Formats: sequence, C-alpha cells, structure tokens
Amino acid sequence: MTTEQLTTQALEARIDVAALGEQLLGRWADIRKQARALSGSEAVRGIPGLSMDEHRERVLSQLHDLVDAKAVHRAFPKRLGGEDNHGGSIASFEELVTADPSLQIKAGVQWGLFGSAVLHLGTEEHQDKWLPGIMNMEIPGAFAMTEIGHGSDVASIGTTATYDPDTQEFSINTPFKAAWKEYLGNAGLHGKAAVVFAQLITAGVNHGVHAFYVDIRDGNGFLPGVGGEDDGLKGGLNGIDNGRLHFTDVRIARTNLLNRYGDVAIDGTYSSPIHSPGRRFFTMLGTLVQGRVSLDGAATSASKIALQIAVTYGNQRRQFNATSDTVEETLMDYQRHQRRLLIRLARTYAASFAHEELLEKFDGVFSGATDTDADRQDLETLAAALKSLSTWDALDTLQEAREACGGAGFIGENRLTALRADLDVYVTFEGDNNVLLQLVGKRLLTDYGQEFRQFNAGVMARYVVKQAENVALHRTGLRSVAQFVADTGDERKSANFFKETANQRALLTDRIKTMVAQIADEMRGVDPKDRAAGAAVFNENQNALIAAARAHGELLRWEAFTTALEKTTDAGTRTVLTWLRDVYALCLIEENLGWYLMNGRLSMQRARTLPGYINILLARLRPHAQDLVDAFGYGPEHLRAAIIADDRESKRQDEAQEYYRRLRASADTPVDEKVLIAREKAAKKAAQQGSKKKK
Amino acid sequence: MTTEQLTTQALEARIDVAALGEQLLGRWADIRKQARALSGSEAVRGIPGLSMDEHRERVLSQLHDLVDAKAVHRAFPKRLGGEDNHGGSIASFEELVTADPSLQIKAGVQWGLFGSAVLHLGTEEHQDKWLPGIMNMEIPGAFAMTEIGHGSDVASIGTTATYDPDTQEFSINTPFKAAWKEYLGNAGLHGKAAVVFAQLITAGVNHGVHAFYVDIRDGNGFLPGVGGEDDGLKGGLNGIDNGRLHFTDVRIARTNLLNRYGDVAIDGTYSSPIHSPGRRFFTMLGTLVQGRVSLDGAATSASKIALQIAVTYGNQRRQFNATSDTVEETLMDYQRHQRRLLIRLARTYAASFAHEELLEKFDGVFSGATDTDADRQDLETLAAALKSLSTWDALDTLQEAREACGGAGFIGENRLTALRADLDVYVTFEGDNNVLLQLVGKRLLTDYGQEFRQFNAGVMARYVVKQAENVALHRTGLRSVAQFVADTGDERKSANFFKETANQRALLTDRIKTMVAQIADEMRGVDPKDRAAGAAVFNENQNALIAAARAHGELLRWEAFTTALEKTTDAGTRTVLTWLRDVYALCLIEENLGWYLMNGRLSMQRARTLPGYINILLARLRPHAQDLVDAFGYGPEHLRAAIIADDRESKRQDEAQEYYRRLRASADTPVDEKVLIAREKAAKKAAQQGSKKKK
Repeated sequence: MTTEQLTTQALEARIDVAALGEQLLGRWADIRKQARALSGSEAVRGIPGLSMDEHRERVLSQLHDLVDAKAVHRAFPKRLGGEDNHGGSIASFEELVTADPSLQIKAGVQWGLFGSAVLHLGTEEHQDKWLPGIMNMEIPGAFAMTEIGHGSDVASIGTTATYDPDTQEFSINTPFKAAWKEYLGNAGLHGKAAVVFAQLITAGVNHGVHAFYVDIRDGNGFLPGVGGEDDGLKGGLNGIDNGRLHFTDVRIARTNLLNRYGDVAIDGTYSSPIHSPGRRFFTMLGTLVQGRVSLDGAATSASKIALQIAVTYGNQRRQFNATSDTVEETLMDYQRHQRRLLIRLARTYAASFAHEELLEKFDGVFSGATDTDADRQDLETLAAALKSLSTWDALDTLQEAREACGGAGFIGENRLTALRADLDVYVTFEGDNNVLLQLVGKRLLTDYGQEFRQFNAGVMARYVVKQAENVALHRTGLRSVAQFVADTGDERKSANFFKETANQRALLTDRIKTMVAQIADEMRGVDPKDRAAGAAVFNENQNALIAAARAHGELLRWEAFTTALEKTTDAGTRTVLTWLRDVYALCLIEENLGWYLMNGRLSMQRARTLPGYINILLARLRPHAQDLVDAFGYGPEHLRAAIIADDRESKRQDEAQEYYRRLRASADTPVDEKVLIAREKAAKKAAQQGSKKKK
Repeated sequence: MTTEQLTTQALEARIDVAALGEQLLGRWADIRKQARALSGSEAVRGIPGLSMDEHRERVLSQLHDLVDAKAVHRAFPKRLGGEDNHGGSIASFEELVTADPSLQIKAGVQWGLFGSAVLHLGTEEHQDKWLPGIMNMEIPGAFAMTEIGHGSDVASIGTTATYDPDTQEFSINTPFKAAWKEYLGNAGLHGKAAVVFAQLITAGVNHGVHAFYVDIRDGNGFLPGVGGEDDGLKGGLNGIDNGRLHFTDVRIARTNLLNRYGDVAIDGTYSSPIHSPGRRFFTMLGTLVQGRVSLDGAATSASKIALQIAVTYGNQRRQFNATSDTVEETLMDYQRHQRRLLIRLARTYAASFAHEELLEKFDGVFSGATDTDADRQDLETLAAALKSLSTWDALDTLQEAREACGGAGFIGENRLTALRADLDVYVTFEGDNNVLLQLVGKRLLTDYGQEFRQFNAGVMARYVVKQAENVALHRTGLRSVAQFVADTGDERKSANFFKETANQRALLTDRIKTMVAQIADEMRGVDPKDRAAGAAVFNENQNALIAAARAHGELLRWEAFTTALEKTTDAGTRTVLTWLRDVYALCLIEENLGWYLMNGRLSMQRARTLPGYINILLARLRPHAQDLVDAFGYGPEHLRAAIIADDRESKRQDEAQEYYRRLRASADTPVDEKVLIAREKAAKKAAQQGSKKKK
C-alpha cells in the first residue's frame, strides 16, 4: 500500500473527539472535570523554580485551598461532612497531578494515608475525634509506616508499642537506628500527629504490626520523646516536607490504638476479630490499597500530559528537507517519531481504560457493593499489577516526550523534566514495583492450580464487576500450537491474523499461562519442609515470575481496551481505536517475539511480517494523532508548556517561510554556491559537447 | 548446578582489582588520576541544593580554579602554553563529570567548543589573538551554532554574515525569530564573545555555514546590535547560564571570519581549499567531533558511579527473610537484583573499553598520526554510534541504580537523581541520538556495497589504530544458518555454543549485515531521480536503519571488550571478565531473540536455553560484583552518596541484629503471637491424641 492510499484510508475514519473524551473521563466524569478546573487554577498549580522552602510553604497553603474548595472530603463519612464516595474521591485526587505532583502527594499523605488509616483502621470513636481536624487541615499528619531498615517488608519493622496496664498506656519506642521512621511526608516540618505502625506487645506477646495515633508536635516543635530529621532535598516532590521520626518512651492512651482489627483491654488482654496474625496483617494493609489505585491513575494522567505536549509539538515542528527544498518535513511524519510516540499513545490508552476498571473495582469493594474476601484479593492484585506498569510507563513516556522535543524538552518552561523528576519516586513508593509484581506473580501461582488452568475465561473478567456480558467473548480460546507454526507468511493473511481480537487474546493469554506453568513445575519438585531449597528455587525463578506478572498486567490492560472498544459507539472513533488497540497488542507480541517463536506459538514467516504490519498501523494512525491526544482533554492550563503555547512553533516557521519566500521573489537574493557549482558543471558539459560537435 | 557449586566455582577465580583498575584507566591513566584528584577536591565538586544563581556563580568561579590547576590547557598548542595532547585533554575533561556535570559542560563550552572552534577553524593568527584569553578565562565565550528553528539540521540555520567590501566588514543578522541562537552555554550571563555560525554571503553568493568570532558583551552588557534572553531553569545542569542570542547588523572585521576552510578577500572574493560546499561543511563540523567523544566517556563514567553506589549498597542492604528467621537476604543475592545491576555492569565495562578505543582513534586523527579522510570518517561514525549508546545507557543505569536503592535512591544526599537530571540532556545535545544513529546507519549503507559485505573482517578492526594483530581472530566467520537451526537443545552444548567468542561474533555481525542488506534491497528499487519516492522508502526503513546502527554500536563495544580480554594478563581477572563479556553478548542476543529465531539464526531449542544460561552466569559473577565496581576506582570523594558512606547501612543492620540477639537471649522477650498459635495447635493436637488413646 502506498503512503497516499494509507492516508486516504486513514482519513475515511474520523474521531469524535468530544465523545471519546467523555468515554476516557469514565464513570466519575463530572468529578474529574471539577478537579481539572481546580487543578488548572492559578492558586493550585505549581510555580516552577521555587526554592524547597518556598515550595513547601506554597503546597502547605494549597492544602488549605483544597479544603476550602471541598475537594478532599469525598471519601469520608457523610456524618462528618464527607460523601462516602470512594471511587469519586480517587478520581478527583488523581487529577491533582496536573497541578503539581507535590501538591497531589502531600494531599495523598494527609487524606489518603494519614486520614484513611484513621478511617479504615479506627472505630467510629476515633473517626469522630480526629477526622474533622484531619479533613480541615487543623491536624496535618504523617503516615509512619516505613522505616530506614524496612520498606518493602513492613511486617519486620522494629518500632514497638508496649502496653503498660499500670498506666493504661502504650509506650512507643524506636529500639535502634534502622527502626527510625523514614521518608514520611509531613514529618519534616508540618505534621502535628502521626499514625505510627509498630509491633503491638502486651502481656508478653508480640501481636504484630498495628497502627497507633500519636501526637508528635505542638507549636514549639517535637513533643517529649519524639525526635526526627528533615530528609532535605529530594530528586523531586520538593514541595513535600519528608522526614524521619523516632520515639523514646512516648506514652499514648490505650485508646489511641486504631483498634478495628485488634484491641487491647484495660488489663492488657489482646483480642481481634481475625484469628490468624498473617491474615490480620494483610487485612489491615489492604485497607490502604487506594494509594496504589490512585498512583495508577495519576501516572497515567502524567503520561497523557507528556503525549499531548510531544504530539502537538511533533505536529508543528519541522526539520530536514527530505522531499522538497522549500518545505521541511513535519516530525510526526517520520516513521521513527511515530514509533516513539504513537506506541506510547496506544499504551496510555490501554492504561487509561484499565485504570477505569480498577477504579470501579475499588469503588465496589470500598462502598461495600461487592466486598468479599475474593474481591479484596482481586483488587490487591489488580492494583499491584497496574500501578507497577503505569508508573514505570509514565517515566518512560515523559522521557521519550522530552527527547522528542529535543533541547526544548530540557528547558524548565516546557514542563516535562520537572514532571518526570516528581514522578520518579512513584515507581518505588506505595510498594516497590519489583516487589509488587512478585505479589502478582505469587497470586498467579496460587491461581494456577485453580481456574487459571481453564484459560478460556478471560483474566480481566474475573476481576471486573460486571463480567457476565463478556463471557461469550472469551470462549474463543486458543488455537493450537501446531496451527501457528504451520501458518504461511502471506502478508495480507498475517495482517488479518494479527488483527483478530481472538488471536491477540490467545497469544497474550497463552504466554502467561505457559510461563506460570513452567515456574510452577520448577517449584513442584521441592520438599515443602526444606525452606532453604524452596527459597533457592523461588529465587532462580524470580525474574521469570516478574516477567509473567508484567505480562499479566499487560493482558489486563489489553482486555480493558478491548472492552472499551465495544462501548465505543461512533464508528469512526471505533475504527481508529481498534488500530490503536492492535498496535498495543502487536507491540507486546513484538517485544516478546523471541518467546513466541522459541515456544512455537508463531511461525517464522508470520513473525517476519509483524514489524512491517505495525509500521502500517502507525502510518494509518498518524493523521489521527492530534485527535487522540486532544481527547485526553487537558487544556493549556494543565499542559503549561511554552513550547506549544499559542502555536508559537508554527508561527515561527510561518515567519521563516515567509522570509525565504520573499527572498526568492527578490532580485538581489544571494545564490547558493551549490547552485552555482551545478550551473558551472552544466555549462562546462555544454561547452565540451559544443566543442565535440565542432570537431 | 547448585548454588553452592556455582559459588565454589565462582570463588576459584579472583579479580586483581588494582590491575583491572589500571587497565580501565587506559592509555591516559596518569592524566585521569590527576583529573580525579582534582574532581574530588572540595573546591571543584558540586554542592547539592544551590539555587540556580548560586550554582552558576560557583561554577563560573570553578572554571577559574580549573585554569589555575592547569587542567584545561592540554589540547591547545604548545606555543601558547598547551600540550598538543588531544586524547589526554579529553580523558581529563571526562573525569570532571564526577565533580559536577554543570562544571564539566561549562568547561566543555568554554574550551571544548568555543576554544576548539578558534583552534580548529581559525588560523594561527586567530589562535594567537584569542586563545590565550580563552585559555585563561579572560574571555568566556559561547558556541553559537544551534538555533530555535534548527538544531539537528545545522546546514539550514538562518543567521547570515554578509560581507560589505566598502567597510571590509561582515554584517551579522538574525532574519527571523526561528534563527535566534538557542541553548548556548555562557550566553545567558557570562559570555563576552561567541563563535557564531552563519550563512556566509559575499558578492551575491551564499557559501554556506561558516564560523565567525563575535564580541557580544562588555562590562555594561550586550554590545550594540546584540540581544538575547536567559534560558532560565532547566531539567538539570543549572550551574550553566544557557541562553539565546540574536543579532541586528552586528559589524565585525573581515578577519573575524575563522577562515581555515573558507576565506573572503578584501574585494569580497570567496576562496576555499575544499571545492565542494558539502564536503567543506562536514569538514568544518568534523573538527568538533570531540564533543561527542568526550560525552561518550563522561556518560560511561556516570554509569560507573551509579553502579558503584548501587552494587555497594546492594551488598549491604538486606530485606525479607527467605531462608532464615534471624538473617535477612542480601539484595545482591536476589536473581532480580543481579539481572538489574550486573547486566548493566557488563554493558558499562563494554562501553568503557570501547570508549578507550574511540579515544585512541580520536588522538590518532587530531595528533595527525593517522589523519586521512577515511580516518576522520571512521572517527565520526564511531563517535556517533558510541555517544548515542552510552548517553542513553547512563540514564537507564542511573535510574535503575536509583530504584535499586529504593526510597533512599530518591533522596538528594544519595546523588543519583541529580546526576540523572544533569545527564538527561546528553542524549540530545552534541547530536540528537536518533539523528546520530541515522548517520551511522547511512554509513553502514554506504559501506554495504564495499567491504562490509565481506564480514569476516571485524567491524571494529576497521576503526582501531592497530588492527593487524586482530585479523587472525576475525577470520572465524559465520556458521551457516542451517547449522544453527539443526542444533540440538542440550543445555551444556548450548552453553558451550553461546560462550564461544567466534559464535558470539558471528551472531552479532550477521544480524547487522542482514539488516543492512535488507534495507539496501528495499532502497535499490527506487528511481534515484524521484526524490519523494526515495524519501518515502528511506522513511519506511527509518526504524530498521536505526536498529541496525544501534546493533553496530553494540558490536563495536563487544569487539572492544573482547580485545580487552586478550590484554588482561591475570588469569583470575580474565576468567571473570570473560563471564562478564559473555553476559554482555548473550543479553544482546536475548534482547533480539525474535530476530535470531525468525531469521533462522538460532534454533528454538537453543534459544530456550539462553535465559537460563544468562542467569547462571549472573550467579557466577555475583561474588565478584563488588570487585568489579571497585575496579572503577572512584573513591568516596567522587561517589558522595550518604547511603554507602562509612558502611552505615551495614552498621545499622549490625545494631539491629545485636538488639534482636540480646532480646532472644533475655528472659522477658515478648513471644510472637504466631509462635503461640503454633504451640496451641500442637497442644490441642496432643490433647486430642491423648483423648483418643484414652478412648
């Protein structure tokens, strides 16, 4: 197919940008729009180049602005002025990333972690006592879980809370330096209280990690027994006062234990509605899953901002004369530029649709509508998988966008470097991505003995709320291996093969199933009593397990994208989105082409057609690139990149074009030396031919 | 093989760290050591957290310190106090990155770009007039090449220098906004002069881009006709005052044209020793290749710093109890951690050895020892390929190192985020990497008709100075495709296959050759007169061409690593380095496994053994990880990461260990609830069994 044919074909489909924008906004569209209006306002948005101290002060005062705008109360109980709206609360919170990630994360610390711990781990009494002050920022607070020595392994933290029946108090202690609480937002400067996670010890028994409400500062600084340090400058998020805390016999009332999942009576007797200490621990931690859910959304929003900037610039910027002496090529017309940006655009769409499903699941669990143990486990797995992928992807997309804008991408006024610096820590906080993916991998192994073996049911279908409608779709199953290998390499046939939804599903699903089965096989041989041997085999398969978990997250996204296609009613939009979904799927297959080939899932002939087919899809998508980023719906007040403000790049080029046009029309234009040389050559040739003729 | 067997085998080999360190330092070891001593000194190193203004002031004054230390004169002529030592000058310059990348790049602007332009594009008269002031910082200067509208395409810049025979002056003009000079170090604040690149117009002819020496500021600011703006805050390198410049009929003497490659006589007659304007342009630009050469070295040094920090920490830090209740696992023992860091370590070694060869080549050309047209072309290609790879790799390695240090990696005092922010722009300045790789790709296409077709000669061999000794080694050639596919999947046989130098070479070389041949085939069919069709076919192969260029750079590195192995005399060191080289090669093959399989270069069986064999090599390397990073030779004064200072992580863990040890030994230790439950269960079971017996 020629480029012209492709362009004609591509232009036959038209995106309904407004409708697609609404679809992307999802169930909480109105709340998102409110949050975007707020995030774009002068008062709430970040100011580049502030010093750390200025930035911290500004963000602190902006938190009060959020309170005034009633932007942060939605997740809290109605009786305290909230809305009991969990999904809506997260949707609103995510959009704050476009204002300033420091603002977002400081808000997340205050209401999403500190406040949520009181809400979910405390009882009504605790909520009534502290939530009003937390909601209105009278009590800025820290979420004191992580320690210097233990981040990923929370169960092993060293801080102790020992019950003293004589005084009916807990004594909070930091027994060694590694047990200092670390990286806590609000701890460096502004926090007046903290929810402190500590080993609960009473009557000579350690009942594991529990949460305690502890006052840490008054107007004069740290309270007696509390100490700490400021974390100082960080790689980003410098509007937040992260810091360290330590405790020396800090006495708190018995009732400061947030005791929903474990309580200590006056006499020191421990009780809990959950008998197993392990399950109790994971239940408590599970109530805090919203951190991961919201980071998935925020990271995806950051990717959207990056792509909206880079694609808009790529549609204006020109460089190098390939086809004409007078008009240079637009960057987005270069195949490489399409590969760099449109593949990431496809991934961001997939992430956006997957996030919306995650948010629905989260809301189902936290509203109580669909809140079984299985639902909570599914939510954990989904959040871990999607948060890992989208936070890494945000860094990758922001960086590619910055490079695609060249030197201008590195200039502060063009936003991308600061956003990337802020988002950096998203990949390791609220769960280090490599650790989270192992959680996902372990879940895959657990499920392997169960329904995962029957992989004709879609994986995402298990997780989403309304799954019945999708079942029929998922019964297509997997074609046999032999059939793949026998396939011929005819290009059109291959393109048809690759664009079939059922084939994409089969290829993506089968890879996960096979990888998990292989790891399960490896582990099956180990004596369950031999701990060292078990650990060794697990470690030998660690990388493969993480790869399987990542593939699982990618499949979840692909399924969400595919479900979204079914909900897209405008035909033109659906056509273009289908190409985009195909690009997402086929790039995943291309990335893992070695696996598909060495395991006989694709024939050599068919595999060889894949890169070319992806390039054709990219060329088809190219005329729609601007519509696809415009549908994200962010305005100049969110993008805030000088490089694309007021079409200034286009205007500069028009000015230059006009200058050269007038120059060419003028009489005293300097002639290009190259033209002169060409003329000389031609003249010489003519003279030679003339002299030959004479002879 | 069990982990124990592996460990035993690994420990049989021992690295001679000092000798390996010397080998890495290369030919200019003494100069590097001097530069490292200087870079680690209090005066020259960066201070984190300075404001932009403070940082700029500090770096400016540090440039004077460099002059005083005689650290920046080496490349300049002996008659002016220099040493005519080009390789040594770059070696020294590269090490400055460990002090502060802002310092390095500002020094690079002053002496490597501004000064070098006068040195290489000017005549002895120009040198004598301006170099002394440039060398001693009396004349801080800018290198005014890039414009807002044209970065990668220098030939199309808009600034004009029009000769006026009446006054015997050039008039420098910025005809439109897009022709403003942009991103120029020293232009924002400190620059007194600039080498301005402009279209030279005389007697009605435009002779293309030439360089002019232009005074821009005196004590009172911009000189008449000169204007500009400060670029302000950037994503990094904020110790440099980047800015924009524009010119309105700025008059300079005729003799301010740096006229080595093109001159204008008093009457306006143009003359040049190079007839072809195209060749003249590339010759002038080629004299500035040292920017790329030095960035390759600096980026590789930054990767070394990152790995030395992350591996040292990974050898101290523990997390999760996998094998024991009392001792947690060391991070470096996790397979995933090995994958993350040791693969990048292998790549950094390859980059380091390749850079040393590049530097030798550079010195050969610039000293005049081996300075033919072919040498200069080879140097250009080498520099473009290696600079692209190493600058991207530095960002990737710094980021992985930061993530491998968890939250601590994000804290400013641990260095990694700031270094990454500074290095970011290295991937797009001195040639955008995607553009540079296309230059490499075009060279591969040009060569394809020539010697590249006979690929039994190594590729690197063409480029390095002393190639005779290697020829024998390169005659091994490529085994036939059929043979690969027929290979069995026996694990040991596969391991033997993969570790053979000749097979690695064959696989890596064949891929490039085949890719280039395919692209050449696609382009062959196009009518050379049809410019649009030619551009279209080139564009359709752009991504493939860049992939081939990247593969070529990787092969260059692999060959340099292999050559270095031959020069490694200590047997233990050579054994370990060979594993490391194998990891580098096999990871490249693993990354492109899809290609090798779909093109029949590897059998499915053999391919399936590859990931496992890489994991085995990583486990073998693991005990040597610390030696391998220690050999880079950077001290605490260069690393400056609190996280590994004074072994504080180890000490904290020892303190915690000791606390728990004493607790276990004490009588009033709290019992873990889990233990209690286990005891209860056991007691219940015993009671049941007892009652059963009674019955």
